[in-house]
Amino acid sequence: MTVEHLDGHNLPWVSELPESSRRMLEAAVDAFADHGFHATTTRDIATRAGLSPAALYVHFPSKGALLAQISRLGHEAALRLVEETLASSTDPIDGLREVIRDFAAWHAQYHRVARVVQYELAALPDGDRQEIFAVRQKIERLVEAQLRSGVAAGVMAVDDERAVARAILSLCVDVARWFDPKGAQTPLEIGTLYAELAVRMVRRP
Amino acid sequence: MTVEHLDGHNLPWVSELPESSRRMLEAAVDAFADHGFHATTTRDIATRAGLSPAALYVHFPSKGALLAQISRLGHEAALRLVEETLASSTDPIDGLREVIRDFAAWHAQYHRVARVVQYELAALPDGDRQEIFAVRQKIERLVEAQLRSGVAAGVMAVDDERAVARAILSLCVDVARWFDPKGAQTPLEIGTLYAELAVRMVRRP
Repeated sequence: MTVEHLDGHNLPWVSELPESSRRMLEAAVDAFADHGFHATTTRDIATRAGLSPAALYVHFPSKGALLAQISRLGHEAALRLVEETLASSTDPIDGLREVIRDFAAWHAQYHRVARVVQYELAALPDGDRQEIFAVRQKIERLVEAQLRSGVAAGVMAVDDERAVARAILSLCVDVARWFDPKGAQTPLEIGTLYAELAVRMVRRP
Repeated sequence: MTVEHLDGHNLPWVSELPESSRRMLEAAVDAFADHGFHATTTRDIATRAGLSPAALYVHFPSKGALLAQISRLGHEAALRLVEETLASSTDPIDGLREVIRDFAAWHAQYHRVARVVQYELAALPDGDRQEIFAVRQKIERLVEAQLRSGVAAGVMAVDDERAVARAILSLCVDVARWFDPKGAQTPLEIGTLYAELAVRMVRRP
């Protein structure tokens, strides 16, 4: 999975959506990112998408439904990225390096949607929250398993694989908070640095 | 600086404030944390503080002024913590370990106020934002200088001290996002783990 050629859209990795739904979700990401979920109305989103509130309502009965769909798509994309990268790697250290490079770069590239997804978890409708937390747990467990396989292979030294997996993912997620597209570092440069820091955190001395 | 015995208040480290101002700031943190800055009104805050909007207005002319004061107090407390810890250390590795332990534990203990401060930076009034960014930069420069002194002493190996200092602080800040007071780890346990991870990130092999 690459993270290039994708500027100017919040959800460019989503290919299977009809154009109308995509437009509504893009508008919702922009509105939530600018004003926060609670201060946004479905009317704001409809206006940004160039639709009537009634037309929006046909697809998404509430702004909570929009948030849930944005969050679901974001989490599923992140899970796919982690699964595919780890599945294609054979060496525990190389696999960790690659997945962290891509995961950190992803949170830089898609910082607007990542902020919405991460900061508005409490605003998710209850059923959606459970489903999305299950995806988050899957991602954490995959990285935890990668650390366990590195420890088993004798190339990593980690006391608490679960806590360290969470810390490494947390480091990557927080890139979305401070990343500035006009800043000195590109998403790939940040990803490359973070991959090296993650390897240092776990490598057997 | 310790982070114990402080549950139940958002700003317990602020000792110099009159009780009335403290009550307004505590109410503002709760309101912003629950609903976000944009969806909160000064009336909401006054009601939570048990005051009339007019009484609130005497001290804080806008909700932006409340946010700025919360952010200023939070950033100044974090800066003091970093300054005091580094000033009292002589060994570069030990100093880094101690400051990261305290900084990460602080973001767990005060996760509610930290979330407000970190997620609403864009909502700060312009003049306040500049002042607060200067404090953030001071904190980053202190940690960066600590890494440089470790490299100069031959005990750390770091290519880009500025980027790594920012990454280590970012790791600690993100604790506020996911920390759960009912979770398995205490603030001090998280701080101790994170201090060790930070040392691993920079120590010369």
